[in-house]
Amino acid sequence: MSYTFTPIGVIHSCFTQKFGIPRQPGLAPDAIGELRLLPPYNSPEAVAGLEGVSHLWIEFVFHEGYSGWKPRVKMPRLGGNKTLGVFATRSPNRPNNLGLSVVRLLKVELVPQVVLTLGGVDMLDGTPVLDIKPYLPYADVIEQARNDWAAAPPALIAVQFAAEAQAQVQAFSSLYPNLGALATQVLSQDPRPSYQDYTSQRVYVLRLWDVDIHWRCVAASAGFVIEVLCCRRVAEL
Amino acid sequence: MSYTFTPIGVIHSCFTQKFGIPRQPGLAPDAIGELRLLPPYNSPEAVAGLEGVSHLWIEFVFHEGYSGWKPRVKMPRLGGNKTLGVFATRSPNRPNNLGLSVVRLLKVELVPQVVLTLGGVDMLDGTPVLDIKPYLPYADVIEQARNDWAAAPPALIAVQFAAEAQAQVQAFSSLYPNLGALATQVLSQDPRPSYQDYTSQRVYVLRLWDVDIHWRCVAASAGFVIEVLCCRRVAEL
Repeated sequence: MSYTFTPIGVIHSCFTQKFGIPRQPGLAPDAIGELRLLPPYNSPEAVAGLEGVSHLWIEFVFHEGYSGWKPRVKMPRLGGNKTLGVFATRSPNRPNNLGLSVVRLLKVELVPQVVLTLGGVDMLDGTPVLDIKPYLPYADVIEQARNDWAAAPPALIAVQFAAEAQAQVQAFSSLYPNLGALATQVLSQDPRPSYQDYTSQRVYVLRLWDVDIHWRCVAASAGFVIEVLCCRRVAEL
Repeated sequence: MSYTFTPIGVIHSCFTQKFGIPRQPGLAPDAIGELRLLPPYNSPEAVAGLEGVSHLWIEFVFHEGYSGWKPRVKMPRLGGNKTLGVFATRSPNRPNNLGLSVVRLLKVELVPQVVLTLGGVDMLDGTPVLDIKPYLPYADVIEQARNDWAAAPPALIAVQFAAEAQAQVQAFSSLYPNLGALATQVLSQDPRPSYQDYTSQRVYVLRLWDVDIHWRCVAASAGFVIEVLCCRRVAEL
């Protein structure tokens, strides 16, 4: 027995590559995305009333790089090689590649097509969306809920921009006004796959829209900080 | 383009009929259900760590009586014939018949099969489950969220038991210890499809497990109350 679902829309987001996508929605408020509804669901009727709702649950498909499920998944944030059962995590390595994110609803446009502007997205560009459900505070806010494996948001790492990077962010500001803020929010969560030694001096690349942001970890009194070296549009490479 | 998913488990719940199922999870805390995992997902490995989690999101399929989507759905709680776009509601009349409920995790059993005992369920008996995700307070609790269409839980109606019903609830207490509490929680939400006139004297039947609970609305100083007339096991009818 199985069930088949058809996308009602597609996400257009700043995250054009998987590397760097925040572990949970809301961690990067400047991550703005659009949900463009597909026919026949792109009807103004179907979104009537959304102006009375501040947040939405987006049910989507992990459509890229899904490699099947594993009963246990590694939790680098818990240190070392600690693993948890997949159902105790939100890892994409699930039996069904369904994702669930709560986002802010910033704007509803009806013409020429229905487009919802969303804030705090953690979805890859091109993500197929299966459903939108309004956040319902009286049912969804559970004050007494407890999750021992992620009691608090990830600790944030300080981010600094080299002079060259600062000038480039400035130069791109007419196209991407929030590029600097967004890059800071994403990098402050240290997107490296499992907390690697900061002494490696390896340069990583975070792509936001078509901008490649080159960065590395550098030693600092507090352990390390993240330094943005330069930002280049892909077309310029 | 479409996506196919296979159930990881099945819900066994007190709600053996659709009529009376609370509009949201958590409204009837005594609604206890079991999620029995199916092979190959019923592995103790896959649920390792759930003991550190108090609440779960259950992603499921509205498997019975799904009659397709409608762009607009009626919201009886908003009075009269007020409608909202389906994406501004949690109505089952959605393009994809996906449900989402947050429940309490009460117990994890590993042998002879993996069974999760859940509290506050609002799922029909036999519901196929596609995924389990842990509630993550730091991401899921959104204090400032606003939903103008359902700012508060539904108002509760007083429930009283006729002498015959009281005696029957008592007689069933070895089999269903929380039958009286559960019936009260469910009926206090007035499960009638759209707030009908209490003067109708019509007798309704709510089925919990195999018990048919006969009830009606009766006039009272506060407008009306719900009176439980009798409780009979289906086998006895």
